[in-house]
Amino acid sequence: MGNGPQVSRRAALGMLAGGVVVGAAGARVGFGASGEGDVGGTQGDLNLTTEEAQAALKTYVPPGKYDPYFIFASGGHSGQMGVIGVPSMRLLKIIPVFSRDSWQGYGFGTDAGNVVLEAGSADDKSDPLYWGDTHHPALSETEGDYDGRWLYINDRANGRIAMIDLRDFKTKQIVDIPNIQTSHGGCFVTPNSEYVHISSMTPSPWTDSGYASLDRYKEDFRGASSWLKIDQQTGHLDMANSFQIELPPYTQDLADAGKLTSFGFGFINSYNTEMATGTAGKADGQTLEAGSVANDFDFLHIIDWQKAEQVVADGKTTVRNGMKVIGLQTAIDEKLLHFAPEPRNPHGIDVNPTGDYLCVSGKLDPHASVYDFTKVKAAIDSEDYQGTDPFGVPILTLESVLEAQVELGQGPLHTQFDDKGYAYTSLFVDTAVAKWALGPKAGHDGADAFTRVETLPVQNNIGHLVTAEGDTVNPNGQWLVALNKWSIDRFPPVGTLHPQNFQLVDLTGSNMKILLDSPIGWGEPHYVQMISADKLTNVMQVYEPGTDPATFATSEFAIEAGEERVERKGKDLHVYMSVLRSHYTPDFIPGKVGDKLHLHLTNVEQTPDATHGFAIPQYNVEASIDPGEVVNIDLDLNRAGSFAMYCSEFCSALHLEMQGWLQVQP
Amino acid sequence: MGNGPQVSRRAALGMLAGGVVVGAAGARVGFGASGEGDVGGTQGDLNLTTEEAQAALKTYVPPGKYDPYFIFASGGHSGQMGVIGVPSMRLLKIIPVFSRDSWQGYGFGTDAGNVVLEAGSADDKSDPLYWGDTHHPALSETEGDYDGRWLYINDRANGRIAMIDLRDFKTKQIVDIPNIQTSHGGCFVTPNSEYVHISSMTPSPWTDSGYASLDRYKEDFRGASSWLKIDQQTGHLDMANSFQIELPPYTQDLADAGKLTSFGFGFINSYNTEMATGTAGKADGQTLEAGSVANDFDFLHIIDWQKAEQVVADGKTTVRNGMKVIGLQTAIDEKLLHFAPEPRNPHGIDVNPTGDYLCVSGKLDPHASVYDFTKVKAAIDSEDYQGTDPFGVPILTLESVLEAQVELGQGPLHTQFDDKGYAYTSLFVDTAVAKWALGPKAGHDGADAFTRVETLPVQNNIGHLVTAEGDTVNPNGQWLVALNKWSIDRFPPVGTLHPQNFQLVDLTGSNMKILLDSPIGWGEPHYVQMISADKLTNVMQVYEPGTDPATFATSEFAIEAGEERVERKGKDLHVYMSVLRSHYTPDFIPGKVGDKLHLHLTNVEQTPDATHGFAIPQYNVEASIDPGEVVNIDLDLNRAGSFAMYCSEFCSALHLEMQGWLQVQP
Repeated sequence: MGNGPQVSRRAALGMLAGGVVVGAAGARVGFGASGEGDVGGTQGDLNLTTEEAQAALKTYVPPGKYDPYFIFASGGHSGQMGVIGVPSMRLLKIIPVFSRDSWQGYGFGTDAGNVVLEAGSADDKSDPLYWGDTHHPALSETEGDYDGRWLYINDRANGRIAMIDLRDFKTKQIVDIPNIQTSHGGCFVTPNSEYVHISSMTPSPWTDSGYASLDRYKEDFRGASSWLKIDQQTGHLDMANSFQIELPPYTQDLADAGKLTSFGFGFINSYNTEMATGTAGKADGQTLEAGSVANDFDFLHIIDWQKAEQVVADGKTTVRNGMKVIGLQTAIDEKLLHFAPEPRNPHGIDVNPTGDYLCVSGKLDPHASVYDFTKVKAAIDSEDYQGTDPFGVPILTLESVLEAQVELGQGPLHTQFDDKGYAYTSLFVDTAVAKWALGPKAGHDGADAFTRVETLPVQNNIGHLVTAEGDTVNPNGQWLVALNKWSIDRFPPVGTLHPQNFQLVDLTGSNMKILLDSPIGWGEPHYVQMISADKLTNVMQVYEPGTDPATFATSEFAIEAGEERVERKGKDLHVYMSVLRSHYTPDFIPGKVGDKLHLHLTNVEQTPDATHGFAIPQYNVEASIDPGEVVNIDLDLNRAGSFAMYCSEFCSALHLEMQGWLQVQP
Repeated sequence: MGNGPQVSRRAALGMLAGGVVVGAAGARVGFGASGEGDVGGTQGDLNLTTEEAQAALKTYVPPGKYDPYFIFASGGHSGQMGVIGVPSMRLLKIIPVFSRDSWQGYGFGTDAGNVVLEAGSADDKSDPLYWGDTHHPALSETEGDYDGRWLYINDRANGRIAMIDLRDFKTKQIVDIPNIQTSHGGCFVTPNSEYVHISSMTPSPWTDSGYASLDRYKEDFRGASSWLKIDQQTGHLDMANSFQIELPPYTQDLADAGKLTSFGFGFINSYNTEMATGTAGKADGQTLEAGSVANDFDFLHIIDWQKAEQVVADGKTTVRNGMKVIGLQTAIDEKLLHFAPEPRNPHGIDVNPTGDYLCVSGKLDPHASVYDFTKVKAAIDSEDYQGTDPFGVPILTLESVLEAQVELGQGPLHTQFDDKGYAYTSLFVDTAVAKWALGPKAGHDGADAFTRVETLPVQNNIGHLVTAEGDTVNPNGQWLVALNKWSIDRFPPVGTLHPQNFQLVDLTGSNMKILLDSPIGWGEPHYVQMISADKLTNVMQVYEPGTDPATFATSEFAIEAGEERVERKGKDLHVYMSVLRSHYTPDFIPGKVGDKLHLHLTNVEQTPDATHGFAIPQYNVEASIDPGEVVNIDLDLNRAGSFAMYCSEFCSALHLEMQGWLQVQP
């Protein structure tokens, strides 16, 4: 605890009785005695430099005031999403997605969460999946701007995708995507939310058993680029109108959608075009790590998704595991898939706000490689190829499409943009953010164009970064958040697993400035998006009375106060229960061993924040019932006992008295 | 988004180019141009009042500096604990306890978490419990002060308790306590960590089947006060040396340990001494809510645990479900259990730092009722009884033991203390904090004694509160946190389930002041404890090489680099794998359908923060392996496939290349 501020704060109490000190950087800042009698005596000397005091004021959101921006952060292998206010960096909510959450009653006997989780686990699995590895959130867009309606997030571990409705901030759908096993960064929404794109990461065997020998990697393993149609009314993924494009067995990685100039196209980076499989299946016994970095160039995948739509409409697809698939040869023949060389093992591919520049971050190459989409399109149209890959995919001539290579530093990973034509790229190895100017099509001519203008060290090991609306057609500038993977000594020790460190950076000055270190101790976020809070205009605080949150329609099981009842049909025991401060009606369930209990709970309140819980001890049942919500619970009463069911959400002065009895007679 | 600060911040950008404005409350605060060229132009007018600016400076912890206090917060029905820095209120970590957490690999195929979770689910349950309702954390103590070694937390839903080691901030033990079904606030540690006390909340049938008719509530239902012995070396709960005291079927609620003057005693509030059971089993059909508030007085339980220890040593116990139990009649006969009347349905019972005053918060009574322990002891010794309860427990004469009743306001719930003899009580109905003076034994004489001195409104519906080390023998004053259950409009809408609101209050001035609203969007904390960070002196940043985190000893499955191997014994496939940036050795597992895989993973790194993940797609396997840690995974290879196992924790520039293949041949 050597360098904490506690010593100076404690020692300083009462030291200064007045005096205004607002000095240059390095000076200490105090507050003078004001109209309030106690200000001078209690404030004292906080031992902050001017720069720190400015940061304090810039990041402070007074009690009851709101942050102007929201971050939607993936939680990595926590399987969740986080919602964070900017600039205060306060965690507003964790949204459970692929993992259960008993606080929200998600996956603990309530139908909405369970149905979503179980639907997301394919039939042939031995047990439902109760975790995921969320990586790249994608907010819905209208004309290339976030519109605040829906949020999509991929499961890197299991090749799934989820949809969250931003009316109630709850997960509504999980889809297990056929024909892919894992998915990393290939998750983005097209500019009018036509599709969510999700691509495979590690290729998987396209065999009947799902197994293939690694000796047959080239022959039997395949990747896929999936275009999942978004229902324009509900935001749900409409699998019947979705399609995939078969890809070679490279590792497809980060991706982005074209916009404005490049609208209608999608872009995916790749690595392991060497098709290394590790120590097995290779005579040289190289690890996968070593084998996958041999080539100087990998392939930027360029997909014409509007052309692919037409190919699907023309019926030139096969069906594999229920999904329409455009075969690799068809994709080549129809000229909807092209490659461009990119320096080895790149990470992010990011399209600038005008849609002109495709910025590839080198990872093992110290440059951002910038491709000009107009040149890409011309090369495609003129078939300006430098060859084909082993599967016949045409490779555009590098010199024809590459606009610039900007030297940034070691380990470039991801790029975001501001409103002044600058790009910001994370440098993992240098543990820094590089600010650099784009070219003429983003307003930078002459010597300024395609040059690095500033480097900001961050702490430590930055992965992704985000700027305010920085991957839309209208970035806001102002804020940048560095998503550092390691915090090391930036926070007090909290055990052998360290939090990550989100660092808030002010972009409004002539130099980038770190204002705040923000620990992330609830997961391991990879990518985040930052949306202006005023775009979230449809957020509900209560449901309409009797709402089924799965559909937002009235539930068939909804009741009003006075309609409570218990109906027994043989061994099926239906209980229609109202929930209201501070009692359940009925508060007694007369069960017997062998009964099947069907509990239909309606929170008949309409007061915001009047959420009730419903827990049954020792039965793994835990519901959270928001005002107006209907929750259904099915439960096999498989053991005798007197179970003290109770409200698990502190609701009122008589919250503890809000209980009742589930009686299960032997 | 009406009242957010974004409008003023945006409009103000660039408005002021300089000028120092440090005025009285209500004036706006800006920063002048300083030695830095850009300060004036970029800072502008943040539209903060002087009071807000002071709050900003007081709560700001500059990048890389540490908070001087830690809060350990229960997560309520999330089943977790949270660690929060004070005064920044930053969430440093969530510790999974009763629920699984894939980020930390807790309960996803790794042995430490799974063993703990499964051990905490009794044999007769049809499925393991994967949630809990954490309520009242209890830090270990030495001589009545926190010592930073261990942390205990109860599961209100399922009558369990967990132990967390503060060396690595991980859950080491969950115990399903016999003879109780639920437990609310009856969780505390005695002053030298002799015992963790945990009492039942709702009584349960002490019948063979665990079922009893509600008509036989008085006869068949019982509560229990459990004294769980703490192993002084490991902090684990030593059930063989623990005992219970049988209690009448009232609802036992909040509790506290005596200290100093009252050392050796424990205190438990109660309600529903009416023994109401709700609409069933009562002729009048009253809800439990209505039935349980009929009596004007309930019973403060006074337990002499040192006397109980002697009774146990003397063998005057029976054994019920493996637990030594002091029967109710024995407890009466041995004079180790007494009652004192307390106004109806009280909530908190809190012992002041000197141990003299027992402060009972009225909940349905606007007073704090203060009992003087010396008078209590005298009444016990002189058998100064006003009668007995229906079970024969002697009731001390109220007038003999009650020292004062302090009118505080509506809905008093919980009380904490500072270093100047003041008490702070949360008022749920008034949604406020009342500050009041204790009496002569806490340094307040004459007119000052037992009077309310200040009331601070909070937002909204405060449950618990905490002051810095405010339930120890040496409170620190300085900070108070109000744990508000409702936030309503204090934060931007994030759906139908609202976050809670922790409000940070400055106690150093002549008046209490709210400095910060802090959203809690990851659970529903009930109680928290606030410990000085400099007491956490034993926190590990890495494990010794090859550590089994369950025991902190070297694991029998640990390997060093170079000792990796695959051993097949029939269908048992043992893989000893090293984990190191950026590869697994071996990176290939040659499995077949029907094999049982035993995976022994050793993170051979010793660099702080060099945690690796290990995920197997579609198998519900997810491990987090900290530097030096050994994790074991047992897995039935029950389906064919080629599974791309990978590192799920971003570890290095070649993190994405850190993968391999689990091959399961058909």
